[in-house]
Amino acid sequence: MNTGMTTRLEHDLLGDESLPNSAWYGIQTLRALRNFNITGVPIHHFPDLINTLAMVKEAAAEANFELGELPPAKYKAIKQACQRIREGELHDQFVVDLIQGGAGTSTNMNANEVIANLALSIMGYEKGQYQYLHPNNDVNRSQSTNDAYPTAARLSIVLSTRALLHSLRSIHKSLEAKAEEFADVLKMGRTQLQDAVPMTLGQEFKAFSVTLGEDIQRIGEVCNLLCEVNLGGTAIGTGLNTHKDYSRIAIEHLARISELPVVPASNLVEATSDMGAFVSMSSIQKRLAIKLSKICNDLRLLSSGPRAGFNEINLPAMQPGSSIMPGKVNPVIPEAVNQTAFQVMGSDLTVSMAAEAGQLQLNAMEPVIVYNILNSMKMLTSAIYMLDHRCIRGITANKEHCQQQVKDSIGMITALVPYIGYDNASRIARNALLTRSTVGELILKENLLDEATLNRLLSPSAMLHPMDSLV
Amino acid sequence: MNTGMTTRLEHDLLGDESLPNSAWYGIQTLRALRNFNITGVPIHHFPDLINTLAMVKEAAAEANFELGELPPAKYKAIKQACQRIREGELHDQFVVDLIQGGAGTSTNMNANEVIANLALSIMGYEKGQYQYLHPNNDVNRSQSTNDAYPTAARLSIVLSTRALLHSLRSIHKSLEAKAEEFADVLKMGRTQLQDAVPMTLGQEFKAFSVTLGEDIQRIGEVCNLLCEVNLGGTAIGTGLNTHKDYSRIAIEHLARISELPVVPASNLVEATSDMGAFVSMSSIQKRLAIKLSKICNDLRLLSSGPRAGFNEINLPAMQPGSSIMPGKVNPVIPEAVNQTAFQVMGSDLTVSMAAEAGQLQLNAMEPVIVYNILNSMKMLTSAIYMLDHRCIRGITANKEHCQQQVKDSIGMITALVPYIGYDNASRIARNALLTRSTVGELILKENLLDEATLNRLLSPSAMLHPMDSLV
Amino acid sequence: MNTGMTTRLEHDLLGDESLPNSAWYGIQTLRALRNFNITGVPIHHFPDLINTLAMVKEAAAEANFELGELPPAKYKAIKQACQRIREGELHDQFVVDLIQGGAGTSTNMNANEVIANLALSIMGYEKGQYQYLHPNNDVNRSQSTNDAYPTAARLSIVLSTRALLHSLRSIHKSLEAKAEEFADVLKMGRTQLQDAVPMTLGQEFKAFSVTLGEDIQRIGEVCNLLCEVNLGGTAIGTGLNTHKDYSRIAIEHLARISELPVVPASNLVEATSDMGAFVSMSSIQKRLAIKLSKICNDLRLLSSGPRAGFNEINLPAMQPGSSIMPGKVNPVIPEAVNQTAFQVMGSDLTVSMAAEAGQLQLNAMEPVIVYNILNSMKMLTSAIYMLDHRCIRGITANKEHCQQQVKDSIGMITALVPYIGYDNASRIARNALLTRSTVGELILKENLLDEATLNRLLSPSAMLHPMDSLV
Amino acid sequence: MNTGMTTRLEHDLLGDESLPNSAWYGIQTLRALRNFNITGVPIHHFPDLINTLAMVKEAAAEANFELGELPPAKYKAIKQACQRIREGELHDQFVVDLIQGGAGTSTNMNANEVIANLALSIMGYEKGQYQYLHPNNDVNRSQSTNDAYPTAARLSIVLSTRALLHSLRSIHKSLEAKAEEFADVLKMGRTQLQDAVPMTLGQEFKAFSVTLGEDIQRIGEVCNLLCEVNLGGTAIGTGLNTHKDYSRIAIEHLARISELPVVPASNLVEATSDMGAFVSMSSIQKRLAIKLSKICNDLRLLSSGPRAGFNEINLPAMQPGSSIMPGKVNPVIPEAVNQTAFQVMGSDLTVSMAAEAGQLQLNAMEPVIVYNILNSMKMLTSAIYMLDHRCIRGITANKEHCQQQVKDSIGMITALVPYIGYDNASRIARNALLTRSTVGELILKENLLDEATLNRLLSPSAMLHPMDSLV
Repeated sequence: MNTGMTTRLEHDLLGDESLPNSAWYGIQTLRALRNFNITGVPIHHFPDLINTLAMVKEAAAEANFELGELPPAKYKAIKQACQRIREGELHDQFVVDLIQGGAGTSTNMNANEVIANLALSIMGYEKGQYQYLHPNNDVNRSQSTNDAYPTAARLSIVLSTRALLHSLRSIHKSLEAKAEEFADVLKMGRTQLQDAVPMTLGQEFKAFSVTLGEDIQRIGEVCNLLCEVNLGGTAIGTGLNTHKDYSRIAIEHLARISELPVVPASNLVEATSDMGAFVSMSSIQKRLAIKLSKICNDLRLLSSGPRAGFNEINLPAMQPGSSIMPGKVNPVIPEAVNQTAFQVMGSDLTVSMAAEAGQLQLNAMEPVIVYNILNSMKMLTSAIYMLDHRCIRGITANKEHCQQQVKDSIGMITALVPYIGYDNASRIARNALLTRSTVGELILKENLLDEATLNRLLSPSAMLHPMDSLV
Repeated sequence: MNTGMTTRLEHDLLGDESLPNSAWYGIQTLRALRNFNITGVPIHHFPDLINTLAMVKEAAAEANFELGELPPAKYKAIKQACQRIREGELHDQFVVDLIQGGAGTSTNMNANEVIANLALSIMGYEKGQYQYLHPNNDVNRSQSTNDAYPTAARLSIVLSTRALLHSLRSIHKSLEAKAEEFADVLKMGRTQLQDAVPMTLGQEFKAFSVTLGEDIQRIGEVCNLLCEVNLGGTAIGTGLNTHKDYSRIAIEHLARISELPVVPASNLVEATSDMGAFVSMSSIQKRLAIKLSKICNDLRLLSSGPRAGFNEINLPAMQPGSSIMPGKVNPVIPEAVNQTAFQVMGSDLTVSMAAEAGQLQLNAMEPVIVYNILNSMKMLTSAIYMLDHRCIRGITANKEHCQQQVKDSIGMITALVPYIGYDNASRIARNALLTRSTVGELILKENLLDEATLNRLLSPSAMLHPMDSLV
Repeated sequence: MNTGMTTRLEHDLLGDESLPNSAWYGIQTLRALRNFNITGVPIHHFPDLINTLAMVKEAAAEANFELGELPPAKYKAIKQACQRIREGELHDQFVVDLIQGGAGTSTNMNANEVIANLALSIMGYEKGQYQYLHPNNDVNRSQSTNDAYPTAARLSIVLSTRALLHSLRSIHKSLEAKAEEFADVLKMGRTQLQDAVPMTLGQEFKAFSVTLGEDIQRIGEVCNLLCEVNLGGTAIGTGLNTHKDYSRIAIEHLARISELPVVPASNLVEATSDMGAFVSMSSIQKRLAIKLSKICNDLRLLSSGPRAGFNEINLPAMQPGSSIMPGKVNPVIPEAVNQTAFQVMGSDLTVSMAAEAGQLQLNAMEPVIVYNILNSMKMLTSAIYMLDHRCIRGITANKEHCQQQVKDSIGMITALVPYIGYDNASRIARNALLTRSTVGELILKENLLDEATLNRLLSPSAMLHPMDSLV
Repeated sequence: MNTGMTTRLEHDLLGDESLPNSAWYGIQTLRALRNFNITGVPIHHFPDLINTLAMVKEAAAEANFELGELPPAKYKAIKQACQRIREGELHDQFVVDLIQGGAGTSTNMNANEVIANLALSIMGYEKGQYQYLHPNNDVNRSQSTNDAYPTAARLSIVLSTRALLHSLRSIHKSLEAKAEEFADVLKMGRTQLQDAVPMTLGQEFKAFSVTLGEDIQRIGEVCNLLCEVNLGGTAIGTGLNTHKDYSRIAIEHLARISELPVVPASNLVEATSDMGAFVSMSSIQKRLAIKLSKICNDLRLLSSGPRAGFNEINLPAMQPGSSIMPGKVNPVIPEAVNQTAFQVMGSDLTVSMAAEAGQLQLNAMEPVIVYNILNSMKMLTSAIYMLDHRCIRGITANKEHCQQQVKDSIGMITALVPYIGYDNASRIARNALLTRSTVGELILKENLLDEATLNRLLSPSAMLHPMDSLV
């Protein structure tokens, strides 16, 4: 009996090590803890990853049991252990740094060891009594890190999109609401920061909502790619040490347990080293970051001022803006989103370089890939939530100011081109600028159009949409 | 008559300029030529872009004619001019540098001017007699750079995927052929550059073909996104200066002329500033580059040596490898592909930054985006063709050497784990390494398995695939 | 009296908020805590930054006191508060997320508020009794976030290079030691992964030490750039609200307190928005990451095998390499360094994009820049320490195997080119490869050189260095 | 005699090939032409690289001659050939694509072959009669691609900085001139796009000039790093096949010929594979690109409008801005510079990835590194020239509008904080915004300051600089 002991000895290829008896992980996790201390971010920072590791181990146990490779007692104990972990138990025992050598071996062994020890305790044994249930022989049975880890990693990413999509759908709705609210705020559209032609502020916010809405779809598509897993490929995709029915059965169980459309990859050798789906997910994260950054750049421009800027909208004040300039309120929320976007774009580069660094039958850099994608997912989710609740929903419009700018503008002359021609219009525009006149005044002065026609052509309704008739 | 004149005067907003009468382009192109001299790469470096510009102009003319906005004579002349350009005429007149300010205005005006002058000549007029047919009023009618240019750019990218896909399908086939050719070359699989478990060289090449095959699909998907165009949105997507039926009609003609599934974007204001589909195409180009680079890294590793390296395969000799080391033959083709991949990945960053830099109703950086995507397409196409014809097809295997390495390996002990357990196997493996023995010798010495069982378990057929039965 | 209260009210531009009385920070920090929750990494993750914030505040207080702008009592209390913080007190009160909007305002206010409350307590007042000593009016006196924050940030980066340089000097020494240890291990040099000409393993490790040694110098150079600060520029570099002697005096004190060669930037308006020195530091971090990654790639190649690889060196075993393949030991330490390098390179992109996003008189994205540089510094320091202690120091050489490969090699024929000519040598090399002969055999067979000359020319001493004489 | 022949046969390791007799290059160049067709950009796109190749070959010939390894006739012919090439002859014979496999072997052989054939012709022989003077044995004597190519590449980059520095110095001067011209244009400074405190437009332009001026220095520093060359290291840095005095002598000649401070690298093995100086040069190019992009972003912001934007400055009109909006003039020059900056930043990534991909004794990816750095140099030079001549020099200020904005601003209340306190000032600022009053009105209404004091504190001279006295 181990009672009274505060440490226990474990053994592996490299020798013996002593572990605190309170530790549910084992010797290989201990070595990994000592080896890797790069980010300071442990696995349990991402509960989705713990949960999908437990799902994979449970699915493998189911298949091994069905194929007669795992006795009922071990099977039941492993299954129960996995379920308890998925319910939130022992997450603090997933301690290895997310950047680690070994293509995820330490993460996989951390899971194998915690599950083994929990299963041992369920069976009535002490931690470390691996003769009764072994992390490698039993929990990892029919698996290699090289199929178990990527399978769990892929599904954890899929799960982590849920929160992201939730925040995206919410901000999409808030933007739609603003689009309606601002439907009759006439303003100057701008191209290349130069006054162009009129539009409504509602159209501008509608464009924001549409562009983010598209990425909701794209993310879903990439999730499908990530649900193609290599479970059953073991070390290099040849399925060494598995029964020919194992891969199919294990994946069916995994689909059931995870409630995700998990399917086997078409070629397991390829799937073992291929990072394509990770690259695609990182790319769509980058695309989303680019769009968010563009939107936030626009919000900052539109709210610039209040006196020496565009001053079309007001962002809600979230904190005093300056330690020296009293009364200054800065667009801090969009600025934080911009920075998040740059962080995500940097992460995408990390993912790309790591994906390129794969060699032969494996990509040993997978941990840094998984870390960055999960981290970007978390940051994007928070940033979008923040942008939605602490900025978008509280935006107000300076309607009169917007309208006055349209009235003063030269750009609306564009609406007259079909009637007075491009060259006439160019000349009038230039004169308006130089003489500080309005376009309308000059048109009438030159008798290019009569007043009634002019007013009709320059009415908002005529300028915001295609025309019923051009004549 | 202009006969005898070698120059003509043209006029725009900024004044008069003299053009050589041989020039089919006009004053705005001339200004752009003077303004922009960054890359030295003119539009006509990418004929696909010229062709899709001509398609857009023809489709617009069709719609304008149908809506009664373009008289039959002008319509016919414009249409004919566009068709002659698509057949290859006057491509050398598309001269503006691809990196240009103005969101593509100079490219659009270059097209408008060349088409106008060609149409004028078809109508029997002189170049520059824009009173009879005007680049802006007629050729550009119902259009803005901001819808005509991106529409043409998107379709030119779609067209340029054809050559890429052709080279991809070809290399895919060559890799499939090699997979069959090497189906019985037994070799060590490696993970993390360490000997792992056996596989065939055929399986390795099959993985290459599968991974590239996937990107053929992905590229097709992004082409669909690119076929959603904003033609009819004019300046900022509000459709100012167009008839309400114009967008629909013009896009139907464009689909017919281009033989591509062109459809209108769901929201033209959003579509005018949105770079999402460009980002997606650049991302898939990057993904392909990553895969190619990984394959070439593998080819260079597998052919390393000849004596102090892996030496599993021989790349065909393409040139003497060294100016000082006689007889050295280097993997120059894969190396050039690696470099191409890095170039493409750098271009993807350029595209990403440019996409993020869009402001308000437009992205003024679109030209650098379009340039990089078209350039990457061209480079990837050439690199894949080169890799296929000058490397893959000529690869031979060092079959005996490969097989000998399997025989000598320690890694095949993995196949015995289900029978002797992970801990026993670890110990034997360590001993084999230290004593330079083979695994088989040690197993027999310790009586862990009898010789018949050992031979059965370590036979290639047992190691390359899942097993019918594990007992 | 506040005794017995568990919360206190504070007030700012946006209204009142209640704070737990245990909090040493104030209302603006509270707002920032609510606003920003992106990375989950608070300021106190980087003690160097807290310390340099305290240094800046102390230096400002000194200058204000000298110029008669701060009464003695306040001055003493602020000074003592800053010193206690630099000694490690209240670091847990620096709580704001490092990614934050507002160009560092929240970090600056967090410092102002903690220092104010600590100074108040030193003066015998309660927290929040800002009528006696005010975060803005007194602690932040003569400062803006826009000069105080970048000044502190720059110096914190300089301080954080100390640990990095320590780990660099240590690994440099370990590599030097290995260079000596392996001075007589003759081996094949390789170019483009192909056997080239002989060298020693010692020369190879020496090159590693030299290349890292260079970056020690480069880092020092960039530290000098970072020591040019804009303190005294206040909001936009014009020095508004400061006495004309303030900047000089404050910076002199800062140099004294920090023991760093701090000097004023030549133009404070420029210095306020310029991110050049940050970009340079990030660039040198990237350069170091590139070199580390290259070294680790080499270590992984040289230790590849053990049977089907280069097998020239052995990395110390740090953990069992595989959950399925017994006895496999993987190069996990170099792999983790590679991943760290990719992370640092991704961060450099983030820094670059953020630097480019500055606008007009300020760069609002400075927080994400500072976060990434400090984070990369920490990761690089850990990774180098790990590489040094858990890999380099334990590397052993397979001397015999290395030597045998030289003997078998074709590449050494290069040494004969000056005597038999490039064309002859090429022919012999090709024959050696095809006939599996050695170069020496063929040379003698063709009577191109006599045996004595051949042996002399191919002796290691002749091949590892330039020759005393070529004849 | 070869007269009448239109082709000649050449031979190498791989067999015979027929060359047009007009070709000054030889068989290895021919093979490279066939192998590599990626960028379409041949060596002669960068004359600096041809010139430095010729310098290296001449320096080597000098050293070989001095050491008795090259007979006088060959020496003279090679020397003369190199000089004629440096004077511009035969540049069109440097035809290989800049992206090439083989670490520059093809570029080096292209130089060796052209020089050999030109030297042969000088000696009175026919092209291809290499028995009289051999590309490898004579022109490449004591060299390898691995030292000759990087040495030439490094120096070509140094030479190419001359045009860049020239354009930088010129724009620096133009910005200085504008700083003086706008010295009395009072305007609002902005932080985070929000009105901050007053400054002059001159101060703003001065900051632009200062920030670019700093990079002039930085570029010079990196040039020094690039002047450390590995000539004499031959294949892998061990100096195989060179006389012990060769490296020193050759480098002395190279310094003399190039008029650059060329010195030997401290360790030639390290120097052969090290890309550090290239990474540093690319980093400083990126830094410069970031600064240019920031300046152009500012120029576009400051000139936004004309009616619904900042409208502080006017950029000179360079071309009509729009094909649909008459009279619109866009900031096309800054936009093109932004795009150039993104291109350069993408190239920096390519360089970084290629640098990381070096293996063992060489970096085979050097050609793509050299190509990108030379290309960025060219693009930056053109972009800066364009920005200087086509934008900066023609900028005018809208002085009255600028001044009016200061008068209307709330931000100037900052100047009153030392007198009325941060909290009072915050309240007044908020009221001014809500009631559309001016700050001055409210201050007087509340009797916080008397009118004389108020006017003194808010006078421009008080706000643009630190104060002589604060009381």
